[in-house]
Amino acid sequence: MPERKKITGNPVYPLIQSGMRLFRWNQKDVGLPPGVPVPAKPVDSQPSKISIFRYGPSELEEKETPVEKLNTVAGRGPVLWCNCDGLGDSEVLQSIGKTFSLHDLVIEDIANTYQRPKLEEHDEYLLFVLKMIYQSGNSQEILSEHVCLVLQQGIVLSFQERHGDVFDLIRDRIRKSKGRIRKMGADYLAYALMDAVVDNYFNVMENCAEEIESLESEVIAAPANGDTSAKIHALRRKVILLRRSIWPLREVINSLMRVESALIDPGMLPYFRDLYDHTIQIIETLETFREVLSGLLDIYMTVVSNKMNEVMKVLTIIATIFIPLSFIAGVYGMNFTYMPELGLRWGYFGALGLMATIALGMIIYFRFRKF
Amino acid sequence: MPERKKITGNPVYPLIQSGMRLFRWNQKDVGLPPGVPVPAKPVDSQPSKISIFRYGPSELEEKETPVEKLNTVAGRGPVLWCNCDGLGDSEVLQSIGKTFSLHDLVIEDIANTYQRPKLEEHDEYLLFVLKMIYQSGNSQEILSEHVCLVLQQGIVLSFQERHGDVFDLIRDRIRKSKGRIRKMGADYLAYALMDAVVDNYFNVMENCAEEIESLESEVIAAPANGDTSAKIHALRRKVILLRRSIWPLREVINSLMRVESALIDPGMLPYFRDLYDHTIQIIETLETFREVLSGLLDIYMTVVSNKMNEVMKVLTIIATIFIPLSFIAGVYGMNFTYMPELGLRWGYFGALGLMATIALGMIIYFRFRKF
Amino acid sequence: MPERKKITGNPVYPLIQSGMRLFRWNQKDVGLPPGVPVPAKPVDSQPSKISIFRYGPSELEEKETPVEKLNTVAGRGPVLWCNCDGLGDSEVLQSIGKTFSLHDLVIEDIANTYQRPKLEEHDEYLLFVLKMIYQSGNSQEILSEHVCLVLQQGIVLSFQERHGDVFDLIRDRIRKSKGRIRKMGADYLAYALMDAVVDNYFNVMENCAEEIESLESEVIAAPANGDTSAKIHALRRKVILLRRSIWPLREVINSLMRVESALIDPGMLPYFRDLYDHTIQIIETLETFREVLSGLLDIYMTVVSNKMNEVMKVLTIIATIFIPLSFIAGVYGMNFTYMPELGLRWGYFGALGLMATIALGMIIYFRFRKF
Amino acid sequence: MPERKKITGNPVYPLIQSGMRLFRWNQKDVGLPPGVPVPAKPVDSQPSKISIFRYGPSELEEKETPVEKLNTVAGRGPVLWCNCDGLGDSEVLQSIGKTFSLHDLVIEDIANTYQRPKLEEHDEYLLFVLKMIYQSGNSQEILSEHVCLVLQQGIVLSFQERHGDVFDLIRDRIRKSKGRIRKMGADYLAYALMDAVVDNYFNVMENCAEEIESLESEVIAAPANGDTSAKIHALRRKVILLRRSIWPLREVINSLMRVESALIDPGMLPYFRDLYDHTIQIIETLETFREVLSGLLDIYMTVVSNKMNEVMKVLTIIATIFIPLSFIAGVYGMNFTYMPELGLRWGYFGALGLMATIALGMIIYFRFRKF
Amino acid sequence: MPERKKITGNPVYPLIQSGMRLFRWNQKDVGLPPGVPVPAKPVDSQPSKISIFRYGPSELEEKETPVEKLNTVAGRGPVLWCNCDGLGDSEVLQSIGKTFSLHDLVIEDIANTYQRPKLEEHDEYLLFVLKMIYQSGNSQEILSEHVCLVLQQGIVLSFQERHGDVFDLIRDRIRKSKGRIRKMGADYLAYALMDAVVDNYFNVMENCAEEIESLESEVIAAPANGDTSAKIHALRRKVILLRRSIWPLREVINSLMRVESALIDPGMLPYFRDLYDHTIQIIETLETFREVLSGLLDIYMTVVSNKMNEVMKVLTIIATIFIPLSFIAGVYGMNFTYMPELGLRWGYFGALGLMATIALGMIIYFRFRKF
Repeated sequence: MPERKKITGNPVYPLIQSGMRLFRWNQKDVGLPPGVPVPAKPVDSQPSKISIFRYGPSELEEKETPVEKLNTVAGRGPVLWCNCDGLGDSEVLQSIGKTFSLHDLVIEDIANTYQRPKLEEHDEYLLFVLKMIYQSGNSQEILSEHVCLVLQQGIVLSFQERHGDVFDLIRDRIRKSKGRIRKMGADYLAYALMDAVVDNYFNVMENCAEEIESLESEVIAAPANGDTSAKIHALRRKVILLRRSIWPLREVINSLMRVESALIDPGMLPYFRDLYDHTIQIIETLETFREVLSGLLDIYMTVVSNKMNEVMKVLTIIATIFIPLSFIAGVYGMNFTYMPELGLRWGYFGALGLMATIALGMIIYFRFRKF
Repeated sequence: MPERKKITGNPVYPLIQSGMRLFRWNQKDVGLPPGVPVPAKPVDSQPSKISIFRYGPSELEEKETPVEKLNTVAGRGPVLWCNCDGLGDSEVLQSIGKTFSLHDLVIEDIANTYQRPKLEEHDEYLLFVLKMIYQSGNSQEILSEHVCLVLQQGIVLSFQERHGDVFDLIRDRIRKSKGRIRKMGADYLAYALMDAVVDNYFNVMENCAEEIESLESEVIAAPANGDTSAKIHALRRKVILLRRSIWPLREVINSLMRVESALIDPGMLPYFRDLYDHTIQIIETLETFREVLSGLLDIYMTVVSNKMNEVMKVLTIIATIFIPLSFIAGVYGMNFTYMPELGLRWGYFGALGLMATIALGMIIYFRFRKF
Repeated sequence: MPERKKITGNPVYPLIQSGMRLFRWNQKDVGLPPGVPVPAKPVDSQPSKISIFRYGPSELEEKETPVEKLNTVAGRGPVLWCNCDGLGDSEVLQSIGKTFSLHDLVIEDIANTYQRPKLEEHDEYLLFVLKMIYQSGNSQEILSEHVCLVLQQGIVLSFQERHGDVFDLIRDRIRKSKGRIRKMGADYLAYALMDAVVDNYFNVMENCAEEIESLESEVIAAPANGDTSAKIHALRRKVILLRRSIWPLREVINSLMRVESALIDPGMLPYFRDLYDHTIQIIETLETFREVLSGLLDIYMTVVSNKMNEVMKVLTIIATIFIPLSFIAGVYGMNFTYMPELGLRWGYFGALGLMATIALGMIIYFRFRKF
Repeated sequence: MPERKKITGNPVYPLIQSGMRLFRWNQKDVGLPPGVPVPAKPVDSQPSKISIFRYGPSELEEKETPVEKLNTVAGRGPVLWCNCDGLGDSEVLQSIGKTFSLHDLVIEDIANTYQRPKLEEHDEYLLFVLKMIYQSGNSQEILSEHVCLVLQQGIVLSFQERHGDVFDLIRDRIRKSKGRIRKMGADYLAYALMDAVVDNYFNVMENCAEEIESLESEVIAAPANGDTSAKIHALRRKVILLRRSIWPLREVINSLMRVESALIDPGMLPYFRDLYDHTIQIIETLETFREVLSGLLDIYMTVVSNKMNEVMKVLTIIATIFIPLSFIAGVYGMNFTYMPELGLRWGYFGALGLMATIALGMIIYFRFRKF
Repeated sequence: MPERKKITGNPVYPLIQSGMRLFRWNQKDVGLPPGVPVPAKPVDSQPSKISIFRYGPSELEEKETPVEKLNTVAGRGPVLWCNCDGLGDSEVLQSIGKTFSLHDLVIEDIANTYQRPKLEEHDEYLLFVLKMIYQSGNSQEILSEHVCLVLQQGIVLSFQERHGDVFDLIRDRIRKSKGRIRKMGADYLAYALMDAVVDNYFNVMENCAEEIESLESEVIAAPANGDTSAKIHALRRKVILLRRSIWPLREVINSLMRVESALIDPGMLPYFRDLYDHTIQIIETLETFREVLSGLLDIYMTVVSNKMNEVMKVLTIIATIFIPLSFIAGVYGMNFTYMPELGLRWGYFGALGLMATIALGMIIYFRFRKF
């Protein structure tokens, strides 16, 4: 995956990373007429860049194009894949929408990077809203990117929140005519793009599983570190937010398998079933993570409390042994004029012996009570 | 949002704010004949105020009207929006009900500000019961307001518990003929009003998310403050009550999408779908809040107990080091006549040395046991 | 609500009140032939009392009647309401059953006061089993009473476990011909009785909400009282048992809305919908109670543990400051012959100064570590 | 219920009683051909005993019969009830299976005492698998017994794991022609047997409820007994295992109500509905038990921790009051040559006064802080 | 079960065994064209070995065959069972796929050992993905093995991740013509294989139940061992992962019962129903395990905290008794010139008496407070 600018989170509390906010929403102006794409957000917005693939079994055209010339390529060639990086410029989106006759609400969904995943059937096209999730190269930070696909007859439009994506291997397969992609239609291309997005979740899952397992070792082996509970909380939070992103995908792909649209060839069904299967597996894995993490916190609590008990036991044993001894020493330190023991020849050693006897007795008692 | 009188809660326990009671109900007199609107409640009731919008693509009339003259405007003009602020006066409601031929039970639902959200299909009209939720300007207090919409052929009746609302932008769009609202029918107006209510939830969600995130920082960074658990409880309570208000909305909009009524144009479906989508997103976010908050309390407990352990460890270490030393001092403080060590030249320094050796030994032992 | 004899619970453990037993069942003799009403229970049973209302728009007859003369009134007059208080006498029930041709199993359900709420459709009649729940006047104790309604053509039979009920307002409405009740049929009467039962739940809910809120204040403001956890447990138990009583009601009213019986006029649907609505609201409120109470116990635990920590901190700080000081005093209390410091002119004040320095140093250290 | 040999559990850990194992399974030899009844289990198996009831409205025959002569009674008389106690002898089962033409898998289900409850429809017969659950006379131990019913045209076969059962009242009703049983068919007999099994659950429930309530008293009144948590765990386990036995029964009776078989008279429906009702009530009660028990453990924890806090407070108060006093005593016990206070006439009483003042001050401080 | 090489887990943290990883996935190269079997994994892969059974009621052929000659046996003989051990060699799989005309995605599912259980209907064949789970002979370690079955007309293909399996008894039954297997078709063979896999789960369940029960004894009898919480966590993890493996199986067998395929004889239904039954029983047992384990951790916490309380009580009692006594000794150890008691004849014994009185008083007080 190509590098990209890491959006740093709140420095005071590193748990809340840019991809980990509990809730964000574009629309600040309640009551705005629906159908108007929200204007460019201050952060994250990048200039739009449109690139074109037009291909068939024996032809291939790849170029970047300004939005004004988009209508010259629309509707030509067996399969057209038009990819738009950067959603900050609402005019570009509206212009694309006009070229490919998309509904105003569809444009709004594409522009709204906080839209949850969904599948919308329209008469002339299908809209897929997805989340691309990946871990940025060197850190544990998870980034979530809004991705929309529009599947029309012979056309796939893809919209991405930021530059760079997980589609490079697909581009390669188109360029080099690897596999069957050049021989198939636009529906296969849409499938391949979704498959690339979903497959990438598996990497995130695997990293997540490793984090959890290393935390498990930490909790059980060398515990009572104050950071551990914060780490558990951060991981639970991550899993909860991943689930929120991925859960609706299941419904999306499930309804995709039921869609009766001329846009989708019946022969695509095994592929969609495969995709559905992967999604279910990811969701089940997330549930497992959640359960293991929730159990882990309980275990951490008992481990901490066991550790604490050990510390307290040492205090208790030393204190309860020495307190009576010190008391005896205190008694014979009193300055009464008449204390018969003081004058005895073996008084001192007798007192020491008494102390040793008491100490020994208590040690035996503690052994017996299995403290 | 316009200012409004803040209804202050119990001063002793600020968690229970006016909008946060666990349960309230209008009907004190069990067994009252159904169909009779409950008489004005002592608190919260405000005098009714009726305002009228009558508009079409090319015409616009806006005025306030007393309830007696309402029948002169009913049934005229392409679209009539009749808004009634203040539900305390049951005669006004019954008069409106008579003018627009509403069922007695509908009037009761409108008057009962504790009614939960629902959609009721009647032959001649649809009744929507909603909750408008907003945070009053300067405080964290959440206010919940009972809002009813009645959609008839060409007519929208809206009823609000208190003056002031979130509809000003819609009024503006009607006045200035912005967007498509002047060209569409009463169903679009009803949609626009519901959309404004739902969009406003997003603001509440965002504030709520910020509160939770700041609480997360507080718990993990600077803990063991006695207030924190009260704050977590207050937030959980808020989320639970928000969920109770918003959850039924999902069902309302879902059945709205299935309604087969001549009152609703099939072209409205994408708009309702959009609304449904927003509701689902709000509900999912509330679930996330709930999970994060519930995990947060667990984390808080471990953080507090870690803090406690640190304190205990200091006590333990100092006590267990000094107890044996004090014991030795006590022994040589005894007044026995015959204590051979006391007379030795280096006895004192020997005793000090013994103490130092014991202290050192224990420090090394604690290091080794990793206390 | 009229007064009634409070059935006092176990005096040792006041949490288990008569209305709060976890489980009770009539049938002690397993294998009794079904269809035989269980004989009178030792406690709670009261002599049966039968009262009759026969009314139409223009006629009204009200009287008490012995069970033997019941067949003289059956089948006459537009609407007959026959109310039977006290279910202890199985012969009376069987005689009523014979008069109105009820199935043996129906009589058994009426006699079995532990029967859960349900709706049974028979060819000639409908059987409703309900629970009337109310708080006895001066105490927090909740009483649950078994109520059965049988709706036949033009006849409503009502059976109550004990004398006294929540139907007095309905009797008044019949007597004074208030509202529409005299103009409607037996189905409306059955609805009105059920509505009175359900409306009464709202009072119980409101008391329950107040108890919970006062407990919330108690937990957060003035905690660590040993009773609090017992109170929380008692309230949770109450909510759990209320839920068990009310939850099946939802199903009852839901299937009532689907019943296609000649006994029920289609015009009753809005009324049943209203009833259903109220039931849902009660159930949702109970869920909210449960969640708040369960969160409350967690909060109580953290509050108690915070309180405890404060106590421990005081011990720790005082102990850790004085232990080294006492040690120094102990050292200079030793009786060695040769202890150079003892003879110094300023030795005593030097020792005091050393102690003060150490105490100060530790106070500063504690401040710094933010204990 | 007749006495039976109590199968004693693990003596070291009395919680795991014979009826309370988490999981047991007959088939040790994986891969055995299906359809072969598993050979006799070492424990629990008792010799088979077959007894016959053949009756109609006016005839009655009751006898024991060896398995070889079973074919002489099959197919004769209005209703035949053939009861087989003891499932250890696989040849007897196969012989019965041949006589009444049962499928091999059915014989396997009958022999497998760990089979879960289910209803299987075959063309010629219905198979019911049930669990008979009862508490052995003098102990709290729960015994679970495998019971199978096969309903054929005019024939009921019942198979029980051990001798002795809950059917004696039914036998009596047949013998004395009490109730309607002699007038009804084999379907009514099957119902009566199932009813007896289900009714018996109510006794178990009632005992269970009493155990829970006595535990509640124990936890709240006189707590901090180490056994209590073990008791709670044992009760939870019991409830969990009861639920596993009873839960599938609901499905069994539910599908029984939907079965469209010539073997079952439509007039039986009210009886099955009654049975279903009882099953639901038992399941709901078990859920209540579970919730109350789970809350109880939380309460127990807070009660224990409150108790602990009280103990700690006494230590804290005594220690923090005496530590400074002992320090003062220690100071004036030092042996410095020059300590001006020592020589003062009122030095001793001054020191005592100082100590009293400090002690008093601390007591007042603790009162004020409400420790 | 035959021995096999135990794949040892992370030695530092023995909880994560090879069969217990939270998540693993084959596909490292996101965006690979679907339908290409992933190349051999570095670990676990074993060379492929293909063995053939061809049998009918009166014929039997058993041999090993290289993959190149496979096409010579395909399509001949009444029933062909072709078993392939070791999935590491993708060319072998593709060659088998070509011979039996399997879809590319099916080959991919067979090669992907992390695929979750599923049933896929294709026109010419059914694909079953299963997990074989067993405990390796001498250790508690659970191994999970990927098993795929392909059922075609007269042909069963089975693919296993590793050599050795639970099918030896089936091979025996084929060889010796035991039971009905030689008389039945390929569908019965597929059932028998699945049955062997599922039956083997019962062994795992039984071991698991024993582990849990021994842990229960440990927790309740001899607690406060630091390892116990780690053991509980390991067991919960095991149960969670077992559930993830077995849960989808239920769906597989459920849809198998609904499949309307010419490949499956209607007479197989009772066998599939039996299989379904076993699966349900396993899943219910796993749920029970989960509940018991989760309760167990709570119990462990209370047991540990009770233990701790006992230790603390001993400290408290000894400390609170001796602290005042030592104080008195300290007072009379002061060196004031004028201390009247010191000179008294019985001062020393008076002081000792005072100490004894105080000690006695405190012991009585502690008894009374029931510490």
